Amino acid sequence: MPVSLKESCSINLGYPYHKHKTPAESLSRLSSYLNEQKKVDSEIGNDHGASLLEDKVAKLFGMQAALWLPTGTLAQGIAARIHGQQTNSERLLLHPSSHLLLHEEQGYQYAHGCSAKVIGKWRETLTSADISGESGSLFVELPQRHSGGKLPSWNELQGIKDHCKALGMPLHMDGARLWSCRPFYENRSYADIVAGFDSVYVSLYKDIGSMGGAILAGSQVFINDARKWRTRLGGFSVGSWPLIYDALHLIDNRITQMPAFIEKAKQLANGIQHIDNFRIDPVVPHTNLFHILLNVSADKAASARDQVARDSGVWLSDRFWDYEYPNTCAMEFVVGEKALALESEIFTKAMTLFDKALNP
Amino acid sequence: MPVSLKESCSINLGYPYHKHKTPAESLSRLSSYLNEQKKVDSEIGNDHGASLLEDKVAKLFGMQAALWLPTGTLAQGIAARIHGQQTNSERLLLHPSSHLLLHEEQGYQYAHGCSAKVIGKWRETLTSADISGESGSLFVELPQRHSGGKLPSWNELQGIKDHCKALGMPLHMDGARLWSCRPFYENRSYADIVAGFDSVYVSLYKDIGSMGGAILAGSQVFINDARKWRTRLGGFSVGSWPLIYDALHLIDNRITQMPAFIEKAKQLANGIQHIDNFRIDPVVPHTNLFHILLNVSADKAASARDQVARDSGVWLSDRFWDYEYPNTCAMEFVVGEKALALESEIFTKAMTLFDKALNP
Repeated sequence: MPVSLKESCSINLGYPYHKHKTPAESLSRLSSYLNEQKKVDSEIGNDHGASLLEDKVAKLFGMQAALWLPTGTLAQGIAARIHGQQTNSERLLLHPSSHLLLHEEQGYQYAHGCSAKVIGKWRETLTSADISGESGSLFVELPQRHSGGKLPSWNELQGIKDHCKALGMPLHMDGARLWSCRPFYENRSYADIVAGFDSVYVSLYKDIGSMGGAILAGSQVFINDARKWRTRLGGFSVGSWPLIYDALHLIDNRITQMPAFIEKAKQLANGIQHIDNFRIDPVVPHTNLFHILLNVSADKAASARDQVARDSGVWLSDRFWDYEYPNTCAMEFVVGEKALALESEIFTKAMTLFDKALNP
Repeated sequence: MPVSLKESCSINLGYPYHKHKTPAESLSRLSSYLNEQKKVDSEIGNDHGASLLEDKVAKLFGMQAALWLPTGTLAQGIAARIHGQQTNSERLLLHPSSHLLLHEEQGYQYAHGCSAKVIGKWRETLTSADISGESGSLFVELPQRHSGGKLPSWNELQGIKDHCKALGMPLHMDGARLWSCRPFYENRSYADIVAGFDSVYVSLYKDIGSMGGAILAGSQVFINDARKWRTRLGGFSVGSWPLIYDALHLIDNRITQMPAFIEKAKQLANGIQHIDNFRIDPVVPHTNLFHILLNVSADKAASARDQVARDSGVWLSDRFWDYEYPNTCAMEFVVGEKALALESEIFTKAMTLFDKALNP
């Protein structure tokens, strides 16, 4: 097959964000790891590896139990359903940029029998004021991806937790990128951040960079129930083991790398603040993800990105989101091993070219 | 971790049924294949590989379209749901040994809003008489695993197809092991066997021996709908690609091997017919799977299996099913590359030891 423009770039800052060149290399790396670990046929088709990973994440989050699932969509659908059944309210309180509203063909409704009340503003994190007077189960995304990876202040987060506790409102965290939150919260532990949530979903591929998969954590009763739903919905393939062992292999190292990714995101964002046509959001990134807001359509932005790729060999981003207003979009930038290894000046130069391509 | 009794056996006839020793070796093999195919990063997270596999299976089955899914449970749940919605009847007609009744925590009911009417007898394949006067969607398993891999005669199968067509009754095939059906039907093509079914699920790991995954095939309209449900239920992980490429790598070769597996099953079954305490079902295997019916509990059978393993180094089977009557069970035997390579006399001897362990 022909090599794409993205793949032809000498500096490729798109997904995957960590350093490994090809699918074949990912598999070789995992094969070596399994050889070192002396993993034998009995690993196939059972949940031994999943248990190791579940126990590890449950402990890290201070939760009683956890469950491996193939996708965040399934994890959060199951969470929505269980919270709804426990409270006799199928209503979900969702931020307008929630994954459930944007990327799941309304599975929360058609597959899980829930309804959605949309609360809060796109570019702002949820506040306890947003849920005042509401009922249902609250989904809070930490960090809020489509708002540029923003996080609520620690006090605001505590306010939300207190509010939900007082009302007996189930509180679920869409923590797909929870791994990147600790520095913003003054290095409080994951368990401190998670405390007060009834359930948490976290991705194993977004920041961890493993092949795929997700973890749902909560009380033992909640997870027992979730496990039944995983069976009912066919969520545990006999072929889950490569994903699970890849996550076990990578998780510790990637968690250790997170602070450096976040520092680098701040550096890179700082290096383009002077470009008048860009609005960096948030101005100082909260995590390893930030947005550059552009006053052009996503198509035009992608064309300019392609021009920079052709002219300079730098692939800036895969993603230009255009959910908010016509003829605007948000370039999503994520720092992993590849952006970490980049000299900041190269990014500044490429973004300057990008600006010129957008505003000739 | 300690090596299990099964893994310590020099001849291991349990799952996985094909020759590859460790998970690490499976990954190495797949890594080499991807290298040969020059697969690059753009294979990750998209559905390019899935499309190749879907198109291949759709063509093989003479169906308009197909969809990759991580598990048969999800594939069949989605099929049940769509047929139910199209006919305004949530009722499924299921054989008592259906996977939906035994292994899925009643997902058809709780997750997909269907109900079940159980028809037919455990050790017999379904007939058109079984569905006379019934309404709903009919699920037919070809071959019927928990009946010893039995198949209905070609005429009976045509009778079922005709009956469903006349009544406008949706007809779905649980074809998990469909790959093994052709010799019994005088080498009619998969498309001939599938013709008349509205949808078919087939496994990519059971006989094909790839890491995991399933295909659901049907009309274009049906598959468009199924694709939406796959999104809603989080059925396409960004990490699906190892499973998909493993299936693409193995499928042609394994289909070619199927007739030899089935011939070998007949030989092996024939070699133990003289043992009075065993009832082989079916007497002449229809596929590469057959049962040995035993008048002991599954626990006792497993203990005797362990004794044979310790005494002779032969691991006979993982599975002793005890669904039917107290103090009886069915030893499941499946022929793949490992049993194919076995001298039949060794199997006969090990089964003779097994008989003695059961009836000292």
